[in-house]
Amino acid sequence: MTEETIVALATPSGAGAIAIIRISGAASIAVASQVFQSVTGKDITQQKTHTLHLGHIVENGKVYDQVLLSLFKNPNSYTGEDVVELSCHGSTYIQQQIIQLLLRKGCRMAQPGEFTLRAFLNGKLDLSQAEAVADLISSDNEASHQIAMQQMRGGFSHEIAKLREELLNFASLIELELDFAEEDVAFADRTQFSALLSRIEFVLKRLIDSFAVGNVIKNGIPVAIVGEPNVGKSTLLNALLNEERAIVSDIAGTTRDTIEDEMVIEGIGFRFIDTAGIRETQDVVESIGIQKTFEKIEQAQVVLYLVDGSRLSVEGKLDALIIEINKIVNQFPLKPMVIVINKKDLISEDLLSTLNHKLITNNQQPTTIYISAKEKTGIDTLKNQLLSFVNTGALRNNETIVTNTRHYDSLLKALEEIQKVSFGLQTGLSSDLMAIDIRQALYYFGEITGEVTNDELLGNIFANFCIGK
Amino acid sequence: MTEETIVALATPSGAGAIAIIRISGAASIAVASQVFQSVTGKDITQQKTHTLHLGHIVENGKVYDQVLLSLFKNPNSYTGEDVVELSCHGSTYIQQQIIQLLLRKGCRMAQPGEFTLRAFLNGKLDLSQAEAVADLISSDNEASHQIAMQQMRGGFSHEIAKLREELLNFASLIELELDFAEEDVAFADRTQFSALLSRIEFVLKRLIDSFAVGNVIKNGIPVAIVGEPNVGKSTLLNALLNEERAIVSDIAGTTRDTIEDEMVIEGIGFRFIDTAGIRETQDVVESIGIQKTFEKIEQAQVVLYLVDGSRLSVEGKLDALIIEINKIVNQFPLKPMVIVINKKDLISEDLLSTLNHKLITNNQQPTTIYISAKEKTGIDTLKNQLLSFVNTGALRNNETIVTNTRHYDSLLKALEEIQKVSFGLQTGLSSDLMAIDIRQALYYFGEITGEVTNDELLGNIFANFCIGK
Repeated sequence: MTEETIVALATPSGAGAIAIIRISGAASIAVASQVFQSVTGKDITQQKTHTLHLGHIVENGKVYDQVLLSLFKNPNSYTGEDVVELSCHGSTYIQQQIIQLLLRKGCRMAQPGEFTLRAFLNGKLDLSQAEAVADLISSDNEASHQIAMQQMRGGFSHEIAKLREELLNFASLIELELDFAEEDVAFADRTQFSALLSRIEFVLKRLIDSFAVGNVIKNGIPVAIVGEPNVGKSTLLNALLNEERAIVSDIAGTTRDTIEDEMVIEGIGFRFIDTAGIRETQDVVESIGIQKTFEKIEQAQVVLYLVDGSRLSVEGKLDALIIEINKIVNQFPLKPMVIVINKKDLISEDLLSTLNHKLITNNQQPTTIYISAKEKTGIDTLKNQLLSFVNTGALRNNETIVTNTRHYDSLLKALEEIQKVSFGLQTGLSSDLMAIDIRQALYYFGEITGEVTNDELLGNIFANFCIGK
Repeated sequence: MTEETIVALATPSGAGAIAIIRISGAASIAVASQVFQSVTGKDITQQKTHTLHLGHIVENGKVYDQVLLSLFKNPNSYTGEDVVELSCHGSTYIQQQIIQLLLRKGCRMAQPGEFTLRAFLNGKLDLSQAEAVADLISSDNEASHQIAMQQMRGGFSHEIAKLREELLNFASLIELELDFAEEDVAFADRTQFSALLSRIEFVLKRLIDSFAVGNVIKNGIPVAIVGEPNVGKSTLLNALLNEERAIVSDIAGTTRDTIEDEMVIEGIGFRFIDTAGIRETQDVVESIGIQKTFEKIEQAQVVLYLVDGSRLSVEGKLDALIIEINKIVNQFPLKPMVIVINKKDLISEDLLSTLNHKLITNNQQPTTIYISAKEKTGIDTLKNQLLSFVNTGALRNNETIVTNTRHYDSLLKALEEIQKVSFGLQTGLSSDLMAIDIRQALYYFGEITGEVTNDELLGNIFANFCIGK
């Protein structure tokens, strides 16, 4: 496969000042030299790696564009092969024309993730680092970015690789014992081996535990917003997003499409699940939509119960509210819930005190925050409350966090095998049977870093990449 | 202004494999060196121009991304200043973070076109070349791309600059005569001067004439499509586009949004003006929409009259068609019209012969093409017919074509002044008065190439650029 020279647009599609066309493979420099004329007349095949050359893309006297050519010689490139990057003017027409020209000269279009796949196959990255590249590109907040960055720099796989090596060492010794089975020798020190297994078990459990928080951080904390229609969901989201949005809009071209449903608060992504509009009746308690609301709450990590303070003076409204809150609390006793009461300034002192009283006597007592989205009071309290639900201790301590389901599965399987080995060791299982379990654990370790792969696995991983990466 | 160091995203916004952040200005290398750590420990301030360096963007120990840094030292850069380009992972989050970091380190966000403005101010490009950069980026077909490419490479402004220089030479001689006015000497050879003026006039007229074709090529040939609703406009457009679209969709990320209304046929852009849906009544002749259709035809260079052949057997339909065609022909006797009759296979032999007869006896006789969009017959004939309406002779002969309204205006004004000078020369106008007209002509020449500019003019030109260019 790597004998073919591949080409793809590496920058986002669309018009911009610059576009990058990336070529990788044994023939990449030769192909580029056929269509590139340096302004200084240099022959690019004779230039050093990591140099830049201004020139024109020309075919049969027709000038396609003025471009800047970046030259990378194997193994000092992203893919580990010879790589040429052409930085051309960012018109989609020019991009097309140049790519078509390169296809005519013998390149073929790269598959999604094929540059990174080649980097993996050429040993420039291990598999979990390659996967981190895709995570890095799709990261849209501080937390997921830091996790991907750490994984890409090898933090995750170094830990696994080190344990794997130690385990491999013991595996060899135990397998050696099999050759001397009749002499009943023990090359592998059982005490040391037991200690190693404990250590591996500890690390695996920590990594497995990190998946819950990692997954939530990677995809955003799901927060269910419960409340009557038109209770001020978007006002609240806007108030929360206010400062963050100001930062974002400082830089042109970075506006977010889905600003209503996802937001980043101090680097942590939140994903708001709207349960509004589910209700069909005015009567809160008898609402036919309550079961649907419950289904949505099920998916969330946190529940925000939004109340329009100005509506509480309506006869019976307050009691209905307390009943509904209790329903949710009874159904989801362990799910953190925040009751957010907007338009505090429109609630009479009497009503406020009644409300406080009733909420306090409610034995499960959810957190209540009074805000005024209009006056922008209470917003910081709410932000901090949301952030407090996220266990970011691990993140702050730069601990390794697992976010990838594939890694999680392999870790679970590896742990199971390690526990089998431990049990075998304790119960005096024969070396030959224990060796099988150890090999199996090693296999799952190898799956994570890519020492063990198959075409289907690689296909699945890289199919999710964008083309050009 | 150029003392400030500017930064912007140079690639299209959105997520992709790679994004480029461009920094230009005296401090660009110093700023980059504060946040960039080379993997080999190199100090980038000590590196040669046109070199590439792998490293990390780091601030206070926090790693933002692994990037590739391109180093360009003045004057060997796009802007003529020190330029650093950071090729980072293409997540919008990372782009934002790195740009914000650079802003904190003292850069400011670049204005639209500011990199190219600096290139102009530093003498790397003249004004018409700078304008061609924007045209190049927005070019979406062969013809407009070739025109922009030619202009960017200086074809246009070299011609103007050369004439300007010759004229300037004569202007000096004539102004010298003013100093010796009492002695009645003539330093400027009037015969040579007259020949120069004729040459300038010839070139200016050619350039001015090229504007009509240039403008049409740049923006696409407007083609009005006339016909009853549901007569098969989109089937026809799809049939026309069929091959071209196949090429386009070969390359991911280059799909066109406005495929229905604009298309490129053999490198020439066409812009289809839909007049369908204007009609309110079934009766073609009495149609209340006919006047609106005429307004649309007015804007077009070519009229395509689409007929559904299968409907022609309806009683009276054929005669109504001939009447309507005649109306259009009478209203627009000089506008090329093509009658496209679809579903030829569904027209009986008798009807076909009647139709041919009636169209032939129609004394203005527009071109008639029979097609079957379904069977894909006649499509090539129609394509060639459309292409034949475009005078691309100038384009094929690599002649200079003016597409920019600003240049066109300056050329018209320069021509007017040159004609005044010619007239003055013929009528023996005094040197001092003639010198004024020559200076004025020189002024308009200078406006095109940017030797004469003002802030407002520059502001208008560069405001239309994208940020990052």
